Amino acid sequence: MQNNLSFFFEPKSVAVIGASANPGKLSYGILKNLSQYGYQGKIFPINPKSAEIMGYPCYASINDVPADVDLAVIILPAEMILDVLRDCGAKGVKACIIISGGFKELGEEGQAREEQVKIAAREMGIRIIGPNCVGNVNIASGLNTTFIKGMPAKGGIAFVSQSGAVCGGVVDHILDEGIGFSHLISLGNEMDVTETDMLEYLANDPQTKVIAAYVESIRDGERFMQVASRVTRQKPIVLLKAGKSESGAKAVSSHTGSLAGSQTAYTTAFHQAGVIEVNSLRSLLQVAMAFDFQSLPENNQAVIFTNAGGPAALLSDSLDAHGFKLADLTEEVQQQLKTGLNPAAQTMNPIDMLGGASEEEYAFALRVAIEKSDAGTLLPVLVPQALVDPVAVAEAFIRETRQSHRTVIACMVGQHSIHEAKLLLHQNHIPVVDYPEDIGEILGAMLAYRLYKEQPGGRKETRSRVDKKKALGYFDRLDNKKFLGEAETRPLLDLYGIDTVAGMHTRDLSETRVAAEKLGYPIALKIVSNDILHKSDAGGIRLDIHDQAHLDSAYRSMLAEVKDKRPKAKLEGVLVEKMYVAGEEVIIGMKRDTNFGAMLMFGMGGIYVEAFHDISFRIAPLDDDEIQQMIRETVAGKILMGLRGTMYDVNAVANVIQAIGQMAIDFPHIQEIEINPLKVLPEGSGVVALDARMILS
Amino acid sequence: MQNNLSFFFEPKSVAVIGASANPGKLSYGILKNLSQYGYQGKIFPINPKSAEIMGYPCYASINDVPADVDLAVIILPAEMILDVLRDCGAKGVKACIIISGGFKELGEEGQAREEQVKIAAREMGIRIIGPNCVGNVNIASGLNTTFIKGMPAKGGIAFVSQSGAVCGGVVDHILDEGIGFSHLISLGNEMDVTETDMLEYLANDPQTKVIAAYVESIRDGERFMQVASRVTRQKPIVLLKAGKSESGAKAVSSHTGSLAGSQTAYTTAFHQAGVIEVNSLRSLLQVAMAFDFQSLPENNQAVIFTNAGGPAALLSDSLDAHGFKLADLTEEVQQQLKTGLNPAAQTMNPIDMLGGASEEEYAFALRVAIEKSDAGTLLPVLVPQALVDPVAVAEAFIRETRQSHRTVIACMVGQHSIHEAKLLLHQNHIPVVDYPEDIGEILGAMLAYRLYKEQPGGRKETRSRVDKKKALGYFDRLDNKKFLGEAETRPLLDLYGIDTVAGMHTRDLSETRVAAEKLGYPIALKIVSNDILHKSDAGGIRLDIHDQAHLDSAYRSMLAEVKDKRPKAKLEGVLVEKMYVAGEEVIIGMKRDTNFGAMLMFGMGGIYVEAFHDISFRIAPLDDDEIQQMIRETVAGKILMGLRGTMYDVNAVANVIQAIGQMAIDFPHIQEIEINPLKVLPEGSGVVALDARMILS
Repeated sequence: MQNNLSFFFEPKSVAVIGASANPGKLSYGILKNLSQYGYQGKIFPINPKSAEIMGYPCYASINDVPADVDLAVIILPAEMILDVLRDCGAKGVKACIIISGGFKELGEEGQAREEQVKIAAREMGIRIIGPNCVGNVNIASGLNTTFIKGMPAKGGIAFVSQSGAVCGGVVDHILDEGIGFSHLISLGNEMDVTETDMLEYLANDPQTKVIAAYVESIRDGERFMQVASRVTRQKPIVLLKAGKSESGAKAVSSHTGSLAGSQTAYTTAFHQAGVIEVNSLRSLLQVAMAFDFQSLPENNQAVIFTNAGGPAALLSDSLDAHGFKLADLTEEVQQQLKTGLNPAAQTMNPIDMLGGASEEEYAFALRVAIEKSDAGTLLPVLVPQALVDPVAVAEAFIRETRQSHRTVIACMVGQHSIHEAKLLLHQNHIPVVDYPEDIGEILGAMLAYRLYKEQPGGRKETRSRVDKKKALGYFDRLDNKKFLGEAETRPLLDLYGIDTVAGMHTRDLSETRVAAEKLGYPIALKIVSNDILHKSDAGGIRLDIHDQAHLDSAYRSMLAEVKDKRPKAKLEGVLVEKMYVAGEEVIIGMKRDTNFGAMLMFGMGGIYVEAFHDISFRIAPLDDDEIQQMIRETVAGKILMGLRGTMYDVNAVANVIQAIGQMAIDFPHIQEIEINPLKVLPEGSGVVALDARMILS
Repeated sequence: MQNNLSFFFEPKSVAVIGASANPGKLSYGILKNLSQYGYQGKIFPINPKSAEIMGYPCYASINDVPADVDLAVIILPAEMILDVLRDCGAKGVKACIIISGGFKELGEEGQAREEQVKIAAREMGIRIIGPNCVGNVNIASGLNTTFIKGMPAKGGIAFVSQSGAVCGGVVDHILDEGIGFSHLISLGNEMDVTETDMLEYLANDPQTKVIAAYVESIRDGERFMQVASRVTRQKPIVLLKAGKSESGAKAVSSHTGSLAGSQTAYTTAFHQAGVIEVNSLRSLLQVAMAFDFQSLPENNQAVIFTNAGGPAALLSDSLDAHGFKLADLTEEVQQQLKTGLNPAAQTMNPIDMLGGASEEEYAFALRVAIEKSDAGTLLPVLVPQALVDPVAVAEAFIRETRQSHRTVIACMVGQHSIHEAKLLLHQNHIPVVDYPEDIGEILGAMLAYRLYKEQPGGRKETRSRVDKKKALGYFDRLDNKKFLGEAETRPLLDLYGIDTVAGMHTRDLSETRVAAEKLGYPIALKIVSNDILHKSDAGGIRLDIHDQAHLDSAYRSMLAEVKDKRPKAKLEGVLVEKMYVAGEEVIIGMKRDTNFGAMLMFGMGGIYVEAFHDISFRIAPLDDDEIQQMIRETVAGKILMGLRGTMYDVNAVANVIQAIGQMAIDFPHIQEIEINPLKVLPEGSGVVALDARMILS
């Protein structure tokens, strides 16, 4: 049913349905863009009211076109589109870009209209981009179906956007900057072709070195993750998600008609799929530019070459915040630097050649560093000076670093007098930032991507260890109950091999003594009464009981205290529980996200979970490495791994995370499950679920 | 001894010592700048080798000048400066700007040279800016003693910088942007005039509406805090501190020769003095521009007017991240909006007027919002569109908001086609950002400043409650010991009214019984042995002992366990301590910062303090409100204030913080003191210091 998306990118002929000779119309702009950037295919304006537009013969209907049409760009009132699409089907058009709005974004009526068009397109085997979009641009072939003013330079960034306006704004930003694109694609309402389809297509596009995406919502999250995980092994995806805050989500949903899913799930999914998420349009462009222009840094060491200390200090702060370090320059290197620089120059890194530094001094210092230092990244910084020509300095950067294989990012602090130098650097594939503080994030993203690619791609086989028949029986016995407490959740944990706390409900002291012997000291006592909510406030807890004499006195004193503090409470005996004194409490849970599926969580448990939000998330299934990462990235995990001197049973924790993920895959009607706290015992001693709850759909 | 700084800003005559007729020299640039921007005072080039430069008669020495000289700008080799300065003294020059480098920044020899010049200047009553600086600019009078290319427009931002290069870069950034300055001041090595002197001067400068400062180090932190606290009551100070990271600090210290203090102390001091700290040069300019151009927002409600959903969503995210909300527009307002906008427009906030939105539609929507909404902030957003003229839209923004008293910040997403519109907006005092994500931080800073100014200025009297004579006796008895443990610190805590845990060291069971009776149950037992470092690992702790029977069994079982686990340890009895079961553990401490004095800390105590860094800092002395804020801004404080249902004794905590601050003021030789943990009991029950330590100088 699906045909190839290449008709959007490499059509032999394009019809503009709704073309106009009136320069006050957007459709005029489309025809003009199509005609003026060297597109070599045939162009057919369609409009019953004109015989010719811009020198092209114009046809009343697409059926009148005396040739095959691969791609139709439609810009007509929404209510006319269904008929026009049927004409396209009859003509054998392969792909349509529907620019017009008036669909899902307007609410119910528009949604119904969109649905009709979608069904018709599917029946006729026509792929659709849009509606409510601004078209696309293939810079290499000169194909431009948008009405955006200006054509980006040719380069390696494919820009994919769910907002047409963002496309326009981005083009306006880069037009004079020498930043180049391979494709620009506005997706609009994504009636048919989605951001995920585009990732899949662009992965194999030889013009595209990096994909930059602006996204407001992703509907098929599981497919997105599969595709993105594959694509990011080939080339980087840099992504900006709008609508992360409550206000932002409201803004997004009101203008696209899409429901936003959980923002945590988005961020988790992006991270797991190797997608580099940025938080601003500026970063999206800067990071994409760096991936396009430069190779990945070989290590986290950088050398700064500057004519001014202040910007170098700001740059150093920014490097530090993103895991980069200033490379140490040996005494020998420093001595060599001294031979070619101002005697007052600072030869430690940052190499500060002082305000008067000439292009020769920059060139010399770069040469020395390339020859003598292993730092993977070179960062020349120029503050415009009265007597220094920025273009000559830029030429030195280009000349000296061309053969170096190092990652080079330049900073030119200013605007007025550095424009020409910046353009020259961009044309020679050295990215330039105006403010030193921007470099850290760019390098951090590049290094993170390098490390991601060096990891082996995970297997993620699911290894169900559960007796499915028993598990089904368990769910049957729940009798459609939706909210399950500790006692009801426990049998499922047992089935998945998760240990629960050993405990017994006793009625009197002698029963309690027997239970304690059975469980083994030390034990804890807890009062049981439906009338007592907060046991510790009522004096109804005794911990750390080590022997029977202690038990007897603790039992008596606890009952006396409770009777004193809660004289009216009906007491129903005590709970005797095995004490795990030496453990750490963590939380492990799963919540099913509408977009991305089973989202697992791990973090600090007990009373601190809410206060500290020390939680990591992943979407199931996970391989072992991912589970280990998930544990390690929290403070709770660091404590388990010996932060405070004791090693806890991290492997047992990993097994519980694996089991909960498996449970979520085995039984899709589990909406949420949470073990809190899970007591983690010292290394080799396992874990114990002290409390748990579950929600079924 | 000090004369008025006004000679730097309003001199009647300026000499340029080291002036040159060679356009390849920086001193040529200085004379040129001085001559070309309308400065009305007299200008005297000094150079023994020339008779005339740029039409000005040139003198061999300043003593040959046939008139008074207020200000001398010196640009000569460092070794000549002492003699020249003596000439200036003889001539009666009031102020010198020493542009030349070759002083402290070069190390020991330079430091000695700087010291000589400083002493000479002081003797002659000459104030000095520099050395190693680029001079200053008074835009209103046309005085420009720098060699920086270009003159900023006239405006309300005074830009003060410890880096000359940053001055140059900033001027290059704003030159074509319509952003205006009152003064530009490069401070260099701050031999005499410091950033704090400048704040003091600029506070009373009528041209200056906001002070923007780039700072690498502050030497007299206490004076800075006093002055800044006063200045920020009059006008905002926006400040960027470089060298916050380890790498950055290294970069700063290597190029200025200044030692960086504790970065936490800097941030704490800035916050306490009402200084708005930003983290990038871009933010420094954007935030300062907004303070200059606009009034402070009346509330945290904003309305967005846009022709594109995507940028509005990014802007909404950015507002949310900085405490701003999208104002709810009533049904009535929305109905009214519908009467003047595209029928498909979105009238909820963000008001999305769609891609074709004209200047009339922006004007209409702004009018409706100003008339019908109380939102303090209006945020018009334009993405350039093929058929919309950005200048006409900018004119609509200006016209409609001129009388409104609302805070207005515009976003124009792009660069190529919006430059003229942006300039027009800036000239009409509407700040413009290129990227929507930048607005949140700007508004957040403005609202924070508004809230700061609404607070009453603190009293901060010190109320010493200690018997000074007893305290002196206490310190005498310490015999010059520097590192003091719990037992040695306890008497000082007692003197300051801080309760310490009640405990007794006992030798056998019967002594232990007596001690427990005396302290009152529940109690805890801890083994005492110099051979046992980690008591709990050795089984040497029993908690929560409620009566004597329990005590007997606990005592015996503990000793048995310890003998079993540490058979070789020499046991020296047990420590019997009162148990405080219901409390929360916090940490309170003080560390003396070299720059800013006694820095107090408060946070989550016990085993979590390191893991979570849940700590707030303040510099003593503090008023009661500041202490309350200090507690409130941590998770620990939120827990004390009832986050988990129980209210703890916050007032007792506040008293301890006050007492520790007082202690630091009373006894400057206390370098560090720390109570960790301080057990905080339920409301009204006080606090107990469980452990403490102190370091004396």
